[in-house]
Amino acid sequence: MTTMTTDLDTLTDVARQLRVDSVRASGAAGSGHPTSSLSAADLAVVLAARHFRYDFAAPDNPNNDHLIFSKGHASPLLYALYKAVGAIDDDELLTFRKAGSRLEGHPAPVLPWVDVATGSLGQGLPIAVGLALCGKRLDRLGYRVWVLCGDGEMAEGSMWEAFEHAAHENLDNLTAIIDVNRLGQTGETMHGWDVEAYAARARACGWHAITVDGHDMRAIDDAYRAATTSGRPTVIVARTVKGKGVAEVENATGKHGKPLPDTDAAVAELGGYRDVRISAERPDVDAAPHVFATEEAELPTWRVGDEVATREAYGEALAALGRRRGDIVALDGEVSNSTKSELFAKAVPERYLEMYIAEQQMFATAIALQVRGWRPFVSTFAAFTARAFDFTRMAAISRANFCVTGSHAGVAIGEDGPSQMGLEDIAAFRAVHGSTVIYPCDANQTAALLARLIDRDGIRYLRTNRGKTPVIYPADEEFRIGHARVLRASDADDVTIVAAGVTVHEALAAAERLTEDGIAARVIDCYSVKPIDVETLTAAAGAAGGRVLTVEDHFPEGGLGEAVLTALAGVDAHVRQLAVREMPGSATPEEQLRFQGIDAAGIATAARDLVATR
Amino acid sequence: MTTMTTDLDTLTDVARQLRVDSVRASGAAGSGHPTSSLSAADLAVVLAARHFRYDFAAPDNPNNDHLIFSKGHASPLLYALYKAVGAIDDDELLTFRKAGSRLEGHPAPVLPWVDVATGSLGQGLPIAVGLALCGKRLDRLGYRVWVLCGDGEMAEGSMWEAFEHAAHENLDNLTAIIDVNRLGQTGETMHGWDVEAYAARARACGWHAITVDGHDMRAIDDAYRAATTSGRPTVIVARTVKGKGVAEVENATGKHGKPLPDTDAAVAELGGYRDVRISAERPDVDAAPHVFATEEAELPTWRVGDEVATREAYGEALAALGRRRGDIVALDGEVSNSTKSELFAKAVPERYLEMYIAEQQMFATAIALQVRGWRPFVSTFAAFTARAFDFTRMAAISRANFCVTGSHAGVAIGEDGPSQMGLEDIAAFRAVHGSTVIYPCDANQTAALLARLIDRDGIRYLRTNRGKTPVIYPADEEFRIGHARVLRASDADDVTIVAAGVTVHEALAAAERLTEDGIAARVIDCYSVKPIDVETLTAAAGAAGGRVLTVEDHFPEGGLGEAVLTALAGVDAHVRQLAVREMPGSATPEEQLRFQGIDAAGIATAARDLVATR
Repeated sequence: MTTMTTDLDTLTDVARQLRVDSVRASGAAGSGHPTSSLSAADLAVVLAARHFRYDFAAPDNPNNDHLIFSKGHASPLLYALYKAVGAIDDDELLTFRKAGSRLEGHPAPVLPWVDVATGSLGQGLPIAVGLALCGKRLDRLGYRVWVLCGDGEMAEGSMWEAFEHAAHENLDNLTAIIDVNRLGQTGETMHGWDVEAYAARARACGWHAITVDGHDMRAIDDAYRAATTSGRPTVIVARTVKGKGVAEVENATGKHGKPLPDTDAAVAELGGYRDVRISAERPDVDAAPHVFATEEAELPTWRVGDEVATREAYGEALAALGRRRGDIVALDGEVSNSTKSELFAKAVPERYLEMYIAEQQMFATAIALQVRGWRPFVSTFAAFTARAFDFTRMAAISRANFCVTGSHAGVAIGEDGPSQMGLEDIAAFRAVHGSTVIYPCDANQTAALLARLIDRDGIRYLRTNRGKTPVIYPADEEFRIGHARVLRASDADDVTIVAAGVTVHEALAAAERLTEDGIAARVIDCYSVKPIDVETLTAAAGAAGGRVLTVEDHFPEGGLGEAVLTALAGVDAHVRQLAVREMPGSATPEEQLRFQGIDAAGIATAARDLVATR
Repeated sequence: MTTMTTDLDTLTDVARQLRVDSVRASGAAGSGHPTSSLSAADLAVVLAARHFRYDFAAPDNPNNDHLIFSKGHASPLLYALYKAVGAIDDDELLTFRKAGSRLEGHPAPVLPWVDVATGSLGQGLPIAVGLALCGKRLDRLGYRVWVLCGDGEMAEGSMWEAFEHAAHENLDNLTAIIDVNRLGQTGETMHGWDVEAYAARARACGWHAITVDGHDMRAIDDAYRAATTSGRPTVIVARTVKGKGVAEVENATGKHGKPLPDTDAAVAELGGYRDVRISAERPDVDAAPHVFATEEAELPTWRVGDEVATREAYGEALAALGRRRGDIVALDGEVSNSTKSELFAKAVPERYLEMYIAEQQMFATAIALQVRGWRPFVSTFAAFTARAFDFTRMAAISRANFCVTGSHAGVAIGEDGPSQMGLEDIAAFRAVHGSTVIYPCDANQTAALLARLIDRDGIRYLRTNRGKTPVIYPADEEFRIGHARVLRASDADDVTIVAAGVTVHEALAAAERLTEDGIAARVIDCYSVKPIDVETLTAAAGAAGGRVLTVEDHFPEGGLGEAVLTALAGVDAHVRQLAVREMPGSATPEEQLRFQGIDAAGIATAARDLVATR
C-alpha cells in the first residue's frame, strides 16, 4: 500500500484502481453495476483527491462536504472510493451485496459516510439541492455539495424540480456531475451523447454548465475548479464511455447491471490489482452550524366547545414550537394558507422554506435537512403527499426523521371534489417502514400530539382536517402516541365505535342517538393509527360483546379499519368497517359524510344492525 | 341569445361573458376559483371559437381535438365555455360544485367533453403529451391537443417530463398554453411575469415557444395559428392578469380560490349578464383510427415443474396477447429487459412505447391512451410505481382503465436491496378506488390471469417476481379474478395458510414439514388480493378451527394480511400475519425470506405456535 500524491498523472492510476475494485466487488458479489461504475471512475477520483473536503474519521464534522451518488447503482465505484481513502479495507469491499454487509446493492446510510439512500433514480440531485439549501439558509457553513448523476435519470421530472429550485435559491455551493455514458439499462438514453442537450436545459434554468470529456483528467479538474467559483449552481456534463477500460463491455448494450463476463481478465486489462491510497482533504475551517435564537412560547390552547379546524391548530402550534425550538424548519408546497404553515412562516420566517408546487423537491429537502440534524415539518394537502410517495419510501431506507402534515383529509373537505381529498394517505403512510400515523380530532389534541411528534424518530404523518370541529378535550389533556382515548363507556356496552379525526364527532353524536334505542355504545378516539393501542381496543372489543364498528373518512383499504382489524386479529371480535366506498363528487361536507354513510346517522344505523345481528 | 360571429372584436365580448359566468358560477357555489378563470378567458375564447375543432354533439368522434385544463381549478372558465358553445345551459352552470352536479369543483369525465380529471397540478400537460402521442403513433389521426397550464404548476417536475417527451417524439400536434398570471395560491410564483423564463426552458427542450400578451386577442390568435404550423410542439407563454376585469381582485394576492367579494358588482363591472353563443368548428375530416393488423397467437404455456419467473411469463403472455389483439399497447420506463415487456416490444414494436425513466409521464400516457379506447399495459419495477402514485390516484377519478405490472416484488429480489424492492405496492394499489390487485405464483397462472385482466375496468395491478419459481398449475387451469385456489386441504385441517406469489411455494413446503408434526395445514393461493375470495377464505378459516396464518412478501400494512383480515372480519377467526417487518439490506433471495420469517421454516414455526396456542 502506497499513499499517492494527488497529481493528475498518478490519479489516472488511482482511477484504474477504482475500476479494478468496482469489477472485483461486483465479481465477488455475482451482481452489481460495474459498467456504470467504470464510466464515472475518472470523475470520482479527481473529485475525491483534489476538490472534496471531508474528514472520513469524523463524518459528523458539520464542515464536511457532502457527496451523493444520485446514480446509486454505481455503488461499486463509491465503495472502491471508500477503500481508496482508507475508510474501508479490501476484505470489506468484497462483502459487497452479501448478507450483513454495510455495502448494500445501493448505498444506504448504514455507512457513516452515506447521507441518504439512493437507488430510485432522480432522488439524489433533489436531496443534494436540499443539502445545499441547508448549508446556505440554516447551517450557514461553507460546505459544498457534490452529486453524481446518471444521464438516464435526467428523464425524471424530479431532477428538473431540483434544477429550478437550485437556480431560484442561487445555490453556488452545489455541483452536479452528469455521467453521460449514453446507455441506460435497455438502450440509448433520450439524448445519447448529446451533452449540449443537458447543458442547454441547465443554462435555461439559470445554472452554469460545463461540458467535458469525462476521461480527460485535466478537463475534469478544471471543471471542478470552475464549479467552485462560478457563483451559481454548476453542472458538469461529462461525456463518458460506459464500461470504460474493458474492451468487451465498453460502450456496449446489454452490459448494464451485471458482473463482467470475466473478472480476472478485466482486472488484468485494467492493469491488475493494486492497493494505493488517496487522502481526501479535510475541511479547512472548524465552524459551528448557525444557531437560531429562540424565545419563550406557550403552545396554543382552546376552550372546550370552541369550533376550530385541526389544520389551524397545527399552524398555531407549529409556530409556537418553532419559536421555542431553533431546530424546527417548516416547508410548504405553495399551499401554506391552506395547511396553515403560514402561521409558522410569519412567526419564524428565517426557518420557513417555500418549496413551490414541487412536492418531490419538498420531501427531498426535508430528507436533506434531517441529515444535518434539523427537524423538518413538511406541509401540503393530504392528497398531494401521494406525489412524493417514492421519496417517502426511500426516506425510510435513509432512516430519515421528519414530519409530514397532510391537510384537507377526506371527503369532509366538501365542494372541491376528489382530486383535493386525501383518501389513500393513511394507507400509504402506514405502509412506510417505521412510520407513525396520527389523526387528531380537535385543536388541543392536535397541538399536544404535534409537540410529541417533534423528537420521535422515523417518518411521522399528521392528518388534519379542513373544516372546523368542536374542541372536546381540555387544554391540559395529555395524549401519548400509541394510545387511544375512550370517550364514552359504560359497564354494559353493546358496541364499540372506533373513530379518528372528523368521524370522532360523528361517532359521539351517533352514540347519543343510539341511547334512544337502548343501545350503549363505547366510543374510542383512535388518534394514533400507527402505532395503534392494542390494549384499549382489545378491552373495548371484549366489553362490547366483540362488536366493533370502525368509521373512517378514507377508502377502506389500509386505513383505520384495517389497522383496528390487525390490532384485534388475535381476539374474539367482529369488526365492521364504515369507510368511503363510492367515488365522491362535489357536495357540502355534511352531504359528503352522509353519502358515504360515515355521518352520525350512518354510524347509528350500522351500529344498530351490528347489535341486532351479532 | 345571439349566435355571434367569431371575429376578434366580438370575441372580446364573449370573453366578458366567460368572465361573468365564471364569477356567477363561483358566486352561486360559494367557492371555486374565479380569479384563475378570469386570467385565461381571452386565451380560452379565441381557442374555442377559431382554432379548436370539436363536435360537441359527438364527443366520441375520433377526429375531435382534445382540450385539457391542466389548471383544473379554472373549472368555472371551462364550464362557462361549455355554456357558450351550447353544451350546457345556464341552469346547469349554476349547479357548479353542488351535490349531484356534473360540474364538479375540478373537471372530471362525468362530463362527456372532459377526457380526464385534473385538479392535482402538473398532470394535464403529461396527459396531453400522451394524447398527442396517441394521435401520431396509434390513432394516426389529425386531431390536435390543446392544454391550458397554470404558471404555478410549471414547478412540478412532471411538466418537464412532458416537455422532454413531447420534443423527443416531435409532437407537432400539441399546443400548451401557459397562463402566466404571476400569482399562485399564496403569493408570486418562482418566475412571476418572466415569460421568457418559461420560453427559454421550453426552447432548450426543443419546443417552439411564443410569448404573448394573454389579453391581446390578435396576438393570441396569431400565436394559435403559428402553433399549428410550427412543425414542433409549441408552447404559448401568455402574460396575463389574475382576476382580469374586476379591479378589486386584479393582480392581487389573497384572492385565490374564493368567490369574488361582491358577485353582482363584479358582474356589472364586467359588463353585465349576457347570453351569447359561439360555435366550435367541427372536425373537417371523417377519418377512422388506425387499425393494427393482428395474427393468431396462442398464450404461452409451461409444464408443471418447470422453473420460470412470473415476470418472464408476463412478458411472453403480453407479447402473445399483443399479437392477437390490435388494441393493446405496452409502455415501459426503460426497464423492459427486467420487467420483460421487451418481449412485447420485439413481437409488436409498433405498439410499444418507450417512456424512459419518467414514470409520471408513463402513467399519464396510459391514462391518455385509454381515453381513446386503447388498452395500455404499463410495466416497471413494483417499487417505482410509487413514483406515479398521485397519477394513479387521479386516474381513478378519471375512471381510467389500464393495467400496471410491477416486477421485482418484495425481498425475494435478493441482493439489490430495499430501494429496488416493492414492499408498499400492494397497499398503495389496494387503496386506489375501483382497483384490482393480482399476485400470481406461477407462469401458467400469470398468463391466464393477464388474459383476464385485459378487458376488466379500472386500474389493474399485476405483481410479478424476479426469481424463478416452479410451475405448479397445469397449462389449462382456469383462474378467475376474485377467487382463490385451495392447494391443499383435508377433512381435519389444523390451520389455514394464506399466501400469494412467492410465498405460495414457501407455504406448500411448510405444510409438508408440518405433517411431520402431525399438523394438517390447508394452503390457499390468494392470487386475487382485490377483490378477495371471501367465501373460500371463510370456509377455510372455519375448517381449520379459525386458525389462519397469512404470509406475504410485503410490509404488514395494507397488504395480503389485512385484506384477509377484512375478508374474515365477520367470522370467528384468529389471524396471524407473517410479513416483512425489518428493513432489509442485501442478501440472497433465500436469506431474505429467512430473515423475515416468511420462508418455509418461518411459516412452519408460526403455524406450530398458532396451533399450540389457539
